[in-house]
Parts: sequence; C-alpha cells; structure tokens
Amino acid sequence: MTGTVYLYAAPVMGLVALLFILYLNGKINRVDEGTKRMAEIGLAIREGAMAFLKREYTYLFIFIVAMVVFLLIVSFLVGPDRMPPSTAIAYVIGAVCSIGAGFIGMRVATKANVRTTNAARQSLNQALGVAFAGGSVMGMAVVGLGMLGLGIVNLIFQGNSAIINGFSLGASSVALFARVGGGIYTKAADVGADLVGKVEAGIPEDDPRNPAVIADNVGDNVGDVAGMGADLYESYVGSVVSTIAIASALGIANGSLVPLLIAAFGILSSIIGSFFVRTSEGGNPQAALNMATLVASIVAIVGSYFIITSFLPASFNVGQDTYTSTGVFIATIAGLIAGVLIGRITEYYTSANYAPVKEIARSSLTGAATNIIAGFSTGMLSTALPVIVVAVAILLAHRFAGLYGIALAAVGMLATTGTTVGVDAYGPIADNAGGIAEQAELAHDVRERTDNLDAVGNTTAAIAKGFAIGSAALTALALFSAYTQVAGIKAIDFMKPEVIVGAFIGGMLIFLFAALTMKAVGRAASDMIEEVRRQFREIPGIMEGKNRPDYAHCVSISTAAALREMVVPGLLAVIVPIVVGVLPFLGKEALGGLLAGAVVTGFLVAVMMANAGGAWDNAKKYIEGGQHGGKGSPAHAAAVCGDTVGDPFKDTSGPAMNILIKLMSIVALVFAPLFF
Amino acid sequence: MTGTVYLYAAPVMGLVALLFILYLNGKINRVDEGTKRMAEIGLAIREGAMAFLKREYTYLFIFIVAMVVFLLIVSFLVGPDRMPPSTAIAYVIGAVCSIGAGFIGMRVATKANVRTTNAARQSLNQALGVAFAGGSVMGMAVVGLGMLGLGIVNLIFQGNSAIINGFSLGASSVALFARVGGGIYTKAADVGADLVGKVEAGIPEDDPRNPAVIADNVGDNVGDVAGMGADLYESYVGSVVSTIAIASALGIANGSLVPLLIAAFGILSSIIGSFFVRTSEGGNPQAALNMATLVASIVAIVGSYFIITSFLPASFNVGQDTYTSTGVFIATIAGLIAGVLIGRITEYYTSANYAPVKEIARSSLTGAATNIIAGFSTGMLSTALPVIVVAVAILLAHRFAGLYGIALAAVGMLATTGTTVGVDAYGPIADNAGGIAEQAELAHDVRERTDNLDAVGNTTAAIAKGFAIGSAALTALALFSAYTQVAGIKAIDFMKPEVIVGAFIGGMLIFLFAALTMKAVGRAASDMIEEVRRQFREIPGIMEGKNRPDYAHCVSISTAAALREMVVPGLLAVIVPIVVGVLPFLGKEALGGLLAGAVVTGFLVAVMMANAGGAWDNAKKYIEGGQHGGKGSPAHAAAVCGDTVGDPFKDTSGPAMNILIKLMSIVALVFAPLFF
Repeated sequence: MTGTVYLYAAPVMGLVALLFILYLNGKINRVDEGTKRMAEIGLAIREGAMAFLKREYTYLFIFIVAMVVFLLIVSFLVGPDRMPPSTAIAYVIGAVCSIGAGFIGMRVATKANVRTTNAARQSLNQALGVAFAGGSVMGMAVVGLGMLGLGIVNLIFQGNSAIINGFSLGASSVALFARVGGGIYTKAADVGADLVGKVEAGIPEDDPRNPAVIADNVGDNVGDVAGMGADLYESYVGSVVSTIAIASALGIANGSLVPLLIAAFGILSSIIGSFFVRTSEGGNPQAALNMATLVASIVAIVGSYFIITSFLPASFNVGQDTYTSTGVFIATIAGLIAGVLIGRITEYYTSANYAPVKEIARSSLTGAATNIIAGFSTGMLSTALPVIVVAVAILLAHRFAGLYGIALAAVGMLATTGTTVGVDAYGPIADNAGGIAEQAELAHDVRERTDNLDAVGNTTAAIAKGFAIGSAALTALALFSAYTQVAGIKAIDFMKPEVIVGAFIGGMLIFLFAALTMKAVGRAASDMIEEVRRQFREIPGIMEGKNRPDYAHCVSISTAAALREMVVPGLLAVIVPIVVGVLPFLGKEALGGLLAGAVVTGFLVAVMMANAGGAWDNAKKYIEGGQHGGKGSPAHAAAVCGDTVGDPFKDTSGPAMNILIKLMSIVALVFAPLFF
Repeated sequence: MTGTVYLYAAPVMGLVALLFILYLNGKINRVDEGTKRMAEIGLAIREGAMAFLKREYTYLFIFIVAMVVFLLIVSFLVGPDRMPPSTAIAYVIGAVCSIGAGFIGMRVATKANVRTTNAARQSLNQALGVAFAGGSVMGMAVVGLGMLGLGIVNLIFQGNSAIINGFSLGASSVALFARVGGGIYTKAADVGADLVGKVEAGIPEDDPRNPAVIADNVGDNVGDVAGMGADLYESYVGSVVSTIAIASALGIANGSLVPLLIAAFGILSSIIGSFFVRTSEGGNPQAALNMATLVASIVAIVGSYFIITSFLPASFNVGQDTYTSTGVFIATIAGLIAGVLIGRITEYYTSANYAPVKEIARSSLTGAATNIIAGFSTGMLSTALPVIVVAVAILLAHRFAGLYGIALAAVGMLATTGTTVGVDAYGPIADNAGGIAEQAELAHDVRERTDNLDAVGNTTAAIAKGFAIGSAALTALALFSAYTQVAGIKAIDFMKPEVIVGAFIGGMLIFLFAALTMKAVGRAASDMIEEVRRQFREIPGIMEGKNRPDYAHCVSISTAAALREMVVPGLLAVIVPIVVGVLPFLGKEALGGLLAGAVVTGFLVAVMMANAGGAWDNAKKYIEGGQHGGKGSPAHAAAVCGDTVGDPFKDTSGPAMNILIKLMSIVALVFAPLFF
C-alpha cells in the first residue's frame, strides 16, 4: 500500500484527539464545583497555574525568537540546501503545539481538581472518573497537538526531514522550560511551604493559613501535568522525527510514513483504553488504571503489526543488510515491552510493598545518615535492571531492523503516550483534590476517598517517571543515530582522543546540570521562605484566620525564581554541543562522543535520582503508616530528611536529565550542517 | 643512546628505594615509644593491622591461585604464542611485590604512630619528621618494589609485553583487596566505634573504654596507608606496563625503556624531595610537605626531559604520524601538571578556606537535608574542572605523541608517586598519633601538636585522593589504549549497537559497584555494632575502666565482615568484562565500549564522592571550630549527618572506583587473546 492519502492519517487522528478532549471537557464541566469555599480555592490554584504559564511564556517567547534568528543565520551561513530557512517555521509550530498542549492540559486539570473533590462527596468511582478525565485531557492534548502539528508540517514540507527536525527542536525548547523551570518551581514551593508552615509555624500541610499553600498546589500541576506532558511530548515527537530522518537518509520506501501511522493509531488505542477506567466503592483505582494501559498496549501492538506488514515490503534492503517487515515489527514492540518493564522495575524499587523501600525504612531507625546512605545506594543499585532491559531492546531492535529499528523501538514505546500521560496527570489532580478537601474542611470520608485516589497517584507517578526516562534514552539514541546519518559520520571511534574527550564532557554536563538544578531549588526555596516569613510578619491576623495571606505573591515569587534559575543550565545545554561541534580540535565526532557520554551517564543518573527519591518518599509514608514508631518517632524524623533530599532528586534534577539528553541530541541533529 | 645496560636502571633504583627505607626505618627506631601505656596502645594497633593483613592474605592467596589456574587454562586454550604461560609468573611477582609494599608500609606506619606521639612531647618538627619518615616508607616501598619487580620481570622476559601485562594484573588483584576490602573495613570500624561509643555510651572519640577504638585506629592504617599505597602501586605499575605494551605494538625504538627510566628517575626525585620536609615550632607542616612535592616534581620534570631527548630520536614515525622527542616530553609533563592541578581543585572544593565548604556549613543551619543536598550538589559540580583538566591533558598528549603520549602522560603524572604516597600516608600516622595521645592521657600541648599535624593530614589526604583519581583515569585510558592495540581493534564505534550496549553496561557497573560497596559498609558496620554492644553487656567493668575490652575481637569481626563483603563486587569486576568480551553478540568492541563507559562514569562518580565526602567532613570541622553555633548546635548535628554519609563516599565507594576502572582495563588487556 502507498499513496499520499495516508499522510493525512496523522493530522486527522490529531483532530480526533482534540475532539475527544471536547468530550472529556464536557464530562468534567457537568460536575459542580461544590461549596463557595471550594470554588474559591479552585480558582486560586487555577489562577496561580495560569500565572506561572504566563510568565513562562514570556521567557519562552524571548528564547524562541532568539532561536529563530539563530536558525536563520545558520541557514544563511550554510545555504538553504543544507538547512532550509523553513526549519524556523517548523520550529515555531513545534513549540507552539507543545505550548498549546500544556495550556489545555493545565487549564482542564485545574478545573478537574475541585470537581474531583466534589465528586468524592458522592462516590469513589465518580471521583476517579473526573480525575482520570482531567488527566486524559493532558494526554490527548500531547498526542493530538503533536500529531496534528507534525502531520501538517510533514504535509506542507513534503517529508523534507531537514525541516521536520525543526519541529522536534521546538518541542525540546518548550520541554526545557516546562520540565526544568517547572521542576525548580514545584520543589521551591513545596520546600518553602513545608519549612515555614509545618516546621516554623507548626500548622498542618495544605492549611489555608499558609501563604505558600496555593503555590504548593500549583506546583503539583506545573511539575506533574505540564512538566511531564512537555517531557513526553518531546519524546513522542522526537522519536517520530528521528525515524523520519533515518528513513530518509537510508532511503527506506514508506519508512517515514510508518512511524506517523503507528503514532496516529496509538491515539485510537489510548482512547479505547480510557473507556476501561472504572472502579466500585472500596475498589482499587490502581487496577482500573492498569486496565487502561493494558488495553491500549494490546490495541497498539495489533495495530502496529498491520501497519508495518501493510506498508513495508515483506523483505527489503538497506545498504548491505536485508530486513523483513516481521523484523521491523519485533523492533517496534521491543521498545513497547521495554517501556512496560522499566515501569514495573521502578515500581519494585519505589513501592513500600517490596524489600528496597522496607530496608530504607528500617535503616531510618539508626538515623538520617543511614537512611540517606540506604536510599542513595538503592537508587544506584536500581540502575542495573533498566540498563539490561534497554540493552536487550537496543540489541534486538538493531539486529532486526538496524538504526531504523532503534528509532522505531522508541516510537513503539511511545505509541501509548496518550494513556501514559493521562494516567500520570491523574496523580496531581487527585493530590490537589485532597488539598482542596483539607482547605475547605470537608467531611472525613471525602478526604478518605481522595487519599485513596492520591495513594494510587504516587505509584502511577513513579511508573510514569521510569517510562519517561526509558523513552528519553531511546529517543535520544534515535536522535543520535539520525545525527550520525545527517552529519555523514562514518564512525564515532572511542580510540580517537577527541571522542574520549567528548564523552567526558557529555558525562560531566550531566553532573553539572544535576548540580545546578539542585542548587537552583535551594535558592528558589529560600526566596519563597523569605516571602512566607514576610507575610506572617507583615499581614496581621493570618494565624488567627482573620486575614487571608497573599497567595498570588507567593506564586509570583517562586515563578520568577524558578525561571531565573533555569537560564544558565538551559543555555549550557544548547551552547556546549554547538561549541564542541564547531571547534576545530573537537568537531562532529567529538560531539557524537559527547552525546554518547551524556546518554549513558544521563540515563544512570536519571534512574538513580528518580528511584532514590521515590523510595525515600514511600519509606517515609510507610513509617507514617505506623511502622518503626510511626509519625513523630525518631525514625520518622530520619525518613523525613531522606524525603526532603529526594524531592529535588525525583522532581527536579532527575527529570531534567530526560530533557538534557534529548535536547542536546536534537540540537546536534538540527545544527549538523554547521559541523565539518 | 641505547643498550641493555639501561634496563638495569629500574631494578637498581628499586633497590636504592629499599635501602632508603632502611635509613628511614633507622631514623624512626631511634625515637622511643614513650610511656608503657603508649607502647601498649601502639602494640594493639600494630597487632590489629597485622591481623587484618594476615586475614586479607588468606583471601588473596585463594584469589591468586584461582587466577593463576585461569591464566594457565587460557594460555592452553589460545596457545603460548598469544598468551605465554609465564604471564602467570609475572602475575604472581606483581602481586607479591604489592603485598610486600603493603606489609612494609603498614609495619613501619604502625611503629611510627606511637613514636610520633612521643616525639610530639618534644617538638612539632621532631613529630613531623617521624610521621613523614613513616609515610615515606610506604611511598618508597610502593615505588621500590614496583620498579624492582617490574624491572626484573622485564629483564627475565626480555620485554615481552604479553607477559609483563601479567605483572600489572597482579598489582590490580592486590589493590582490589587492599582498597575495596580495606575501604569497607575502615568505615565499618569507624561507624561502629562512633555509633555505639559516642552516641549510645556517650564516651568521647578515641576513648580506651570503647572496644572498637583499636579497630578504628587500625582502620586509618588499613584504608589510608595500605589501601592508598596499593591503589597508587596499581596506577604506577599500570601506567608503565601499558606504555610498554603500546610501544611494543607500535614498534617505537626505546619506547619501552623510556617509561621505566622516567619511573626509576622519579624514585630519585622523591628521595631528594623528602629532605626538604622540616618546620619550626608553630610553623606550618603543610608548607613543608608542599615543598617536598614541589622539589620532587621539578627534579622529575628536568630528569624526564633528559631521558626523553637522550633515548628517543629527535623525530620519529609511528604509522603515518611523525612525532618529536620534544613532543613526547610535552605529553609526559601534561600528565604531571594535570595531576598537580586536580590536587589543587580537590583542595578548593574540600577545604574550609574556600566558598564551597563554607556554603555547606551554612546550609547546615536549615537541617540535615539541606546539608546533604548542598554537599551532594557540590560534589557533582566539582567534576567540571577535573574533567576539563583531564580533557586538555589527553588532547595535548595525543596531539604530540599519539596513544604513546597518552600512556606517557600517565607515567609523567605518576613519576613522583614516592612523594605522593609518602605525603598521604603521613596523614593516618598523624591521626593515629593523636588517638594514642588521647588514649594515653598525655599533656594538652602534645595533643595540640598532633592535632596540628593531623589537620594538615586531612588536606594532604584530599589532594592525594584527587591525584589517585586522576592517575587512575589516565592509567585506565592507557591500559584501554594498550588493549585496543593488542586486541587488534580498528575502531570502537559508538554507532554500533554492541558498543552502545557495552558503554551502558560499563557505566552501570560503576553504579552497581558503588551501591554494593556502600551497602557492604552498612552491613559490616552492623556486625561491629553488635559486637561492641555485646562487649559492653557481657564484659563487666568496661565503663568504669576496671576491665579492658577485647579489642582484638572487634578487629577480627570487622576484618571478616569487610573481606566477606568484597567478594561479590570483586568477582563482578573480573568476570563481567571477560563475559562481555567472549559473548558472540557482544565481543571485543563491546568490551571497548564497556571500558570507555566505565572510565567516564567512574571518573565522575569518584570525583563526586571524594569531594562531597571531603567537603562534608571539613564543613563539620568548620562548625566545630565555632561557626554557626559550634559543637552541639543543631547545625553541628546536621553537619555530623553529612559527614557520616560522606564517610563511605570518600573512603570506600569513591576510591573503589579507581580500582574498578583500572582492574577492568587490565583484565581486558591480559585476556585480549580470548576475544575474537
């Protein structure tokens, strides 16, 4: 089968996803906001989230304009044959679609939170339905706008991969701000709210007297809805774009169409899966969410099989190698299965049901130091299995379909992105719903239902983190492979000193980026702490509940700090690869070494930080559940210390690694014409 | 100049070093042991240290026998042309020389400690003289037995590099046990002594009522004398051996002689430098030690210049490249200068005189969690400059002398190993001297002098750690280069999936090794804690000072635990590279990728852990000096937590990285004939 008519599948399925958003939105709107107090709190969170986005867009606007100018200069320097000026157009479209997805997702998530609380006044199933519908909007926005934008760019520019790469660069630019800036924001707000509110003023979590409480609730949305969405949007787009680039470079007939069709069909799979989310009162919401993922995966696998065998010849040659369509299918599902396995491994290392978290909890008995060492070493240990899974996926994908197979493995892993993002974004909505129940002082059983939803959110968040890391690694490798093809590199040989040096620089950038983002959280948090202390001091009657604190100012302070702090690491990520690529004594092979060093080290650090952070968090919760003396015991104090260390690990620096490895790879791919 | 007579320079200079040991030993023996109590404590430490060594040798014996059998089997499999059976002989000699160096060094260090205490009853300069003489014995034993053994092996086997490689494998085997086993031992004893003694029983550090006090003092010697000595012996030998292997493979005339001569001459430089160590009462011992390093470095540089220009032609060809003797000299001193710079950078990040440690101390004001985050991010940040230094050294060395240059850079860095080990081993002797003064309840001014010596020891230890990491990275790269030549690898191409997978496995092994060694410290420490608690419970009158605790049993418990715990990580380090090399779908290029991934990640993790650990330690000392509330304040408690986390970082897992990257590289080099 062939024909340009199939090229319309991607934008059309993108539109279908957007229509599904309208349906979900209607479903959410039908639920009432509840009491006046609930509506007020909901509004404050919504306004705070939008204030963050607005400020982020201002920074992004400057960044995007600068990048467009730079792209045009490079295009002028190397000539339109090697870099068409339209790359800048694709870049802007890629960025705008990601911004749009984040905007829609946040808008609806901050509408669904308060409605989830209200639905929880009726039943668990209704609350689950609202929360999951809210999360699904983010998922559908990511895949819908991704496919719509990429599909249209592909149609307009007739599959010219040099131009299409720009779309992926746009996705990465937004992901940098949303994920890294958002990651700094969410932890600065969290630490600020906790340290002054809980520790200094002695008021409970989510207490409305805490000036930073809304900023903290906003942070959940900024980090886990918009941040995770932009991260997976970047992977989703990057995997398809790199497959198109590789297929073009290798001249595989219909090779560019297949990833678009698999991704487009994945939208349908996710929509089908979403109808399987329901639970009974006292049921387990986790099982409902797992069902959605399972159904979506099976539908996606079956669809991929038919797409691949219909559009690729049963057997075809690439250079001296012969591949079969069955082999391509195996490569594709190798990625999908690897994604699921990494999620499960993450769950093992971060859930209180298994030995690692229990051991960390036990080590809290001898104090904070042993808790830290236990969590840290568990995080390091937890890298072993994911590495083996990724290694097997790479070897299988390459054996059966070469570089094209590695890229398609990433596409396969990301086929069900709609469901994954939906399940993940459900978490902060449930978390917010609990916070609103607390602040609005609702009945005990309401909070119980939202707590039930929220507990599941922690597990899904951990699994989604593992999935995001795995997909980032595969996408970065796919982009890296595309870069080697476009730059005409014959070998990236570690026996050459410039490649070794490149690998050292790549690994070092990972450590540097992790260090800078961790330090950024510290500084942004202290801005927040100052502001909360100032409000307690200067606004009379806050503690007595007579006067409302100035929530908006806290949001604004921590937004400004977060975005200010991400400038330096962000610029590093864009500039260093280009500098290494153009320097005469380093060059394009050294840049290949840099990307290799960064992917390997970045994957390890990302897994380590995400799992250590998740494990510390759940070890604390395990103790709070009554183990080892429970809340208020010395073991609990030690576990709180570990959890605080883990916060920037799992929500700022760890996820930042995903962005960094993909961003540097796409920068190398887009600017390859600059390097000789 | 040429002629086999120069081949005798290495063993002769080795003998000179051994004679110098006799001189130093005489100097130490002339000092009295002091009071009866002092002599008793000195004896207990000496006996404990020897008990550790004896047990270590038992394990080592089994390991060495197994390795000899394995070498002979491989030799039989691949034929004596590709691996001569005599490799096993060279292996045993290399191991025995390292064991001998450790034995001599420990023997004299545990004699010098109590004599340093006694000398401190007279004057600071006399105490410095004894402590430095004790440290120098370890330094001279390392270089003396290294050059004697390697020189003789080189003579007997007429420069057959396949055989000589075995010598380096022997060095690495002993280093594994001394550094990793020793690292676990020292921290298990330290944590055990502190947790039960200081925290539970409330008795001060170094109190004779603490059953683990001798084990703790023994640990200083085991870790910083024998461990560091074996680590640098491994680097010293490995750099020379890899240079010989590369020179043989590339057919550089006199190319094998030059590294031997530079190393042999380095012994002379170190002896000359050692005569510059003196200070006045109230003077700064640091300045005296710096002077020794400076003089030794200058003499080594001048000597290297004459050796290189005399023995290498002014200009010569290697393949298509032309190198000059001046270029080779530049490559050599690039390594030496890089070593000095990395030491200085380490000092900046770990000394309380500079901003990083002060910031960690300040962050202790907000609790343990912020202290941990600050130390951790400082450690990660501190990798940037060392990477740049190593990168410049690699690029310079390769530009001026190719792979041969990279190997010679490592030799250049290690030329002054005698001084470096001497200065480093001085530290634990001074530390022990302080402990003995405390336990023997000597006058306040004695403890003041030993504290003065000890404070310097912390800085020199940090510098030596930086140097050990830098030398390990360069040596591993040199061994890696030698491996590629011997295995006949044309390129280690990261575009091949098996190389990508190799790099992932290499990086993962680093994380795994770090995790396993950290967990090992925890388990070994808990064995120790149980034993101390048992003694307090079962031996009456310990706390009243009426009954002596059973020191020896504590030593034995923690020795057994340490050696037991290192079996799994040790086997991993030997077996995984061989398995990757022989597996048909991975193979020798994948093994190259593994080594590359391990060197890059290992260097980063080693620097991070060493510097974070050193910085935490000194931040605690800085607060103890009266800052931020001083001893007993909440900030101090937070800093103690950081210091405890830092202990296994800087003294166990961090240094273990040095061993791991060198060991895996030499395993690859020696067993290269197995891989197809």
